[in-house]
Amino acid sequence: MEEEVMFYDTDCGGVVHNIAYLRMIEKARTKLAANMGMALREMASTRLFPVVVRTEIDYRKPAILGDFLQIHGKLTGLQGPRFWVEFTIHRNQPAELLITCRQSLALVQMPEGRPVRLPESWAKFWPDLVMKKSTAKE
Amino acid sequence: MEEEVMFYDTDCGGVVHNIAYLRMIEKARTKLAANMGMALREMASTRLFPVVVRTEIDYRKPAILGDFLQIHGKLTGLQGPRFWVEFTIHRNQPAELLITCRQSLALVQMPEGRPVRLPESWAKFWPDLVMKKSTAKE
Amino acid sequence: MEEEVMFYDTDCGGVVHNIAYLRMIEKARTKLAANMGMALREMASTRLFPVVVRTEIDYRKPAILGDFLQIHGKLTGLQGPRFWVEFTIHRNQPAELLITCRQSLALVQMPEGRPVRLPESWAKFWPDLVMKKSTAKE
Amino acid sequence: MEEEVMFYDTDCGGVVHNIAYLRMIEKARTKLAANMGMALREMASTRLFPVVVRTEIDYRKPAILGDFLQIHGKLTGLQGPRFWVEFTIHRNQPAELLITCRQSLALVQMPEGRPVRLPESWAKFWPDLVMKKSTAKE
Repeated sequence: MEEEVMFYDTDCGGVVHNIAYLRMIEKARTKLAANMGMALREMASTRLFPVVVRTEIDYRKPAILGDFLQIHGKLTGLQGPRFWVEFTIHRNQPAELLITCRQSLALVQMPEGRPVRLPESWAKFWPDLVMKKSTAKE
Repeated sequence: MEEEVMFYDTDCGGVVHNIAYLRMIEKARTKLAANMGMALREMASTRLFPVVVRTEIDYRKPAILGDFLQIHGKLTGLQGPRFWVEFTIHRNQPAELLITCRQSLALVQMPEGRPVRLPESWAKFWPDLVMKKSTAKE
Repeated sequence: MEEEVMFYDTDCGGVVHNIAYLRMIEKARTKLAANMGMALREMASTRLFPVVVRTEIDYRKPAILGDFLQIHGKLTGLQGPRFWVEFTIHRNQPAELLITCRQSLALVQMPEGRPVRLPESWAKFWPDLVMKKSTAKE
Repeated sequence: MEEEVMFYDTDCGGVVHNIAYLRMIEKARTKLAANMGMALREMASTRLFPVVVRTEIDYRKPAILGDFLQIHGKLTGLQGPRFWVEFTIHRNQPAELLITCRQSLALVQMPEGRPVRLPESWAKFWPDLVMKKSTAKE
């Protein structure tokens, strides 16, 4: 996924504000979820939402206004109602790794806020990502 | 209401981003609504929300990082399900008028999105603000 | 330009928050500016920025999570250091006009904040948009 | 520091959006920095900025519209150009711990982006927070 850095992404330090990258990551996460069979449109009616439980983000180099950024995400772990995803943000020119980010999410039924087991299909499609209780990170 | 300009309010032009003032105005509007008997906590359960129908905002002078801003709002008109509010944003030092803003809102019952007549008490408390159909601005 | 409504665009009323549309409009305005020869990358170095002077926005119908929105913008007036642009936001399905917005901007040299006359080329390319002093709106 | 949850802090899941807490934390961090002798107003002119290098944030319980939140921060480590801070966000009623967050920052001279050693006074005032190279976390 590509994003161009807008004025609203930057701050008066002259670089992209630390919070703005998390909007880009959310957009990438949404596209990742859509690829895994969870479209936003559907969530709006079922109210079964992926909820961020933890974020770790490292700011390695800053982006500036007008940079074109590549955001990539992948699923890295599955366990009960939780899953783990990782993201990188690279600048196109000059090519550089700017951001690495790791998030864990839980599938939650709103408005009750009840955690829901991940779909069976996920474990079937990505068997190597299923984590045992004892080895779950965090 | 006073707000200090944060990094996330600014952009790489070195001044407050045009969108950031609207967050400050929303906060002032919420305090104004609370004074009129509509607290956020209550809205969260009744789901009877004031919805912005139109915004007009003039950016006269820019604020910068660390400025202390005074945001003032007042009710200026009432009619059926709609009401009008006006805001100013001044800087403390040097004292200057930075922003003027006018919004119209409607009271809406969610999730149906049905407009609801304003409480009788509003018209009683502010009789001089009740607008006749023919003279309603916009 | 197309945007998919993300979680961060919505609020607990269940619809897109009024401020979120202004980020979409800023992105559309940036693409419009790029078409007129003003790329963000260049602005970051010249610090000659288009600054929003006034926004008028009408919220006609709400968008919800997962909606695909079409944002269109066009230049509608030119005068001295100022120019006018207009935007519409439509939903794809069901097809509906949600938002209309009109903004005036000034070309400003930062960090001094000095207004700069619009490039001659603009008036040459869009002669029918040049406004006389006396007829300038606002 | 106390913040009331605004509409723009929430999303259509009915709770505060994960990114919104980071704005509250930034505001708390700014007040913490001011207490340590670094006021925003001054930074705007010296362009010596604290830059977020890493964020870890755990979302334990959700806040909703109209909640009053207490955000507390403290300095937890110092080393060369970097320092560590930790934050908690509690809800007032019912009283609950919602968020824990840990950030590391570097003092950076903009626009060059050059890391600058922390002021001597910091190490003098908080000698027990000075970290040795080998024991620095992360």
